[in-house]
Amino acid sequence: MKRVIAMKVTVYGAGNQKLYTDELNLPERYGGEAPYGGSRMAMEFAMAGHDVILAEPSREFLDDEQWSMVEEAGVTVTDNDKEAASEAEVAVLFTPFGKGTFSIAREILPELPEGSVIANTCTVSPVVLYYVLEKELKLERTDVGVSSMHPAAVPGTPQHGHYVIGGRPTAELDMATDEQVSRCAELAESTGKKAYIVPADVTSAVADMGSLVTAVALAGVLDYYYVGTQIIKAPEEMVEKQILMTLQTMASLVETSGVDGMAAAINPELLVKSARSMHLLDEQEELDAALKKISDLNDDVMKWIEGAEVNHTDLVAAQALTGELKTVIGDRAAEGTIRRCMRKMFE
Amino acid sequence: MKRVIAMKVTVYGAGNQKLYTDELNLPERYGGEAPYGGSRMAMEFAMAGHDVILAEPSREFLDDEQWSMVEEAGVTVTDNDKEAASEAEVAVLFTPFGKGTFSIAREILPELPEGSVIANTCTVSPVVLYYVLEKELKLERTDVGVSSMHPAAVPGTPQHGHYVIGGRPTAELDMATDEQVSRCAELAESTGKKAYIVPADVTSAVADMGSLVTAVALAGVLDYYYVGTQIIKAPEEMVEKQILMTLQTMASLVETSGVDGMAAAINPELLVKSARSMHLLDEQEELDAALKKISDLNDDVMKWIEGAEVNHTDLVAAQALTGELKTVIGDRAAEGTIRRCMRKMFE
Repeated sequence: MKRVIAMKVTVYGAGNQKLYTDELNLPERYGGEAPYGGSRMAMEFAMAGHDVILAEPSREFLDDEQWSMVEEAGVTVTDNDKEAASEAEVAVLFTPFGKGTFSIAREILPELPEGSVIANTCTVSPVVLYYVLEKELKLERTDVGVSSMHPAAVPGTPQHGHYVIGGRPTAELDMATDEQVSRCAELAESTGKKAYIVPADVTSAVADMGSLVTAVALAGVLDYYYVGTQIIKAPEEMVEKQILMTLQTMASLVETSGVDGMAAAINPELLVKSARSMHLLDEQEELDAALKKISDLNDDVMKWIEGAEVNHTDLVAAQALTGELKTVIGDRAAEGTIRRCMRKMFE
Repeated sequence: MKRVIAMKVTVYGAGNQKLYTDELNLPERYGGEAPYGGSRMAMEFAMAGHDVILAEPSREFLDDEQWSMVEEAGVTVTDNDKEAASEAEVAVLFTPFGKGTFSIAREILPELPEGSVIANTCTVSPVVLYYVLEKELKLERTDVGVSSMHPAAVPGTPQHGHYVIGGRPTAELDMATDEQVSRCAELAESTGKKAYIVPADVTSAVADMGSLVTAVALAGVLDYYYVGTQIIKAPEEMVEKQILMTLQTMASLVETSGVDGMAAAINPELLVKSARSMHLLDEQEELDAALKKISDLNDDVMKWIEGAEVNHTDLVAAQALTGELKTVIGDRAAEGTIRRCMRKMFE
């Protein structure tokens, strides 16, 4: 067994247990028991031998019995975010979606010890978190890193067997040192869970709720790649271009016209007929299931799609465009534009 | 029954029957009989009462018996592309992929009669065809339009029950008049097939081979949209952003790093674990099938993925970026850049 070196860890946000048990009905749907969320993460870190603080100003998020469980696991509870930051080698943000998380991050950054790493969970993209703090990270706190400790499931449920850790991003932003990334991975693994290190800007696609779409689309892409290159024997490059084109077309139509507008433009009835011709193997189960699903849309869904508007869309290869932009206005000026368009996608 | 007004139609390209029967094994795989492809389209147009020319310089693409079938259907066969254009109210390009099609299109454009419409099939995007001819279409031949008569299946197989017609594009290019689009739709319907009018720049995503990917991804998107908004009750806007983000991330990773690089970045093993948490309904068959498929990748595929490199990628919302580009360098200058990046996607 790997020897665990105790770390000082602060978890921000305990998780609203009423939401988990009453509204989302987790005990019945997934199993496990309250407290779920940030408080469960804190308990698991403490039980792995770390020195853990849970910062939560909303006392009502847990009932008295649940708070006792947290403390019995060895977690120190506080309502003071700033104080909780002062020794945190890892500061995990299990905080609300959007601005709430930004203001906590801004508040604690000056208080963090030398070399600390801030890790998001499911409520914000690590890239957006980095951009929100970028000025301070580049001037005053060059020692602090940004990574992820994304549970990709609700902590406290049996599904939570892994963490997604934000590694070196594909866009070469200087978000965290290798040591800071490894520190997050070690913290995750010390709880007996598996740590997956993924480029920081890709974590959202594989760890947030939308991972359903990523998984289904990946199955379709791999199926088509095989059929296209091995059965139809089309050139690899052509098959890859087609994959880029279909995914980019769908993404851009959703961006300008919503899911209903995208579906209206691509016309499910037609799509079933076209895609059926690509059924060339005995086993293309994801295609069978997809064709069945989109052949069988109920009247409400069809009305919603048929009533949608398709807005102006410039269908372009996005990476070709970022490349052209850098050539036309220069790398430095392009950087600002690219950042704004990245935030439009992740925020 | 709708009264059919006879049109003058020229089909360019008969289709290589050896490829269809010997290599692709269509009679066994799909049914139907040779001649398949452009020659079958020409036969069907002629049998619907139109005045049809089939232009094909490669006599060896059909055997003698097949050529007789074409002529018995009432089609005039020629090897002279230019002459075949002179009366064509609709000129259908069932011509080779890429440059072959461009040079035929350029050669016949000056010969076409007033108000003619050029229609692509599966070998070129109508948008690319438009851009290739744009100078002439904007100066000398403002009367000629560009649309599609995309069979979205191999003509001659029982699967070919419809045509995809290129309508007004989402990018507001002035490609064809409403009458020219209707003319293509009427030609399609006169053969007893259904005509689907789709924005010209969207036809590739729903009619080419990659429609397999579009169909499977659409099933995933609609599933997640329902689960996200109705079961998890997340705000619609947030669910839509997640869909944009997942599709855009995959598209851009394929663009910079290929299918293997994309799969390496998103990590199939991790993805299965994350997406499984989104199984919240009894019936999510496309998700079940996708999870099964990507859990079960064989060793060769896993080696291919694990050996892949993930290259620099700037993950941005593409439509936000085209918008910024127009603001920064002006609509006119942006137009040229957008056009190049559109061709990079469709060509």
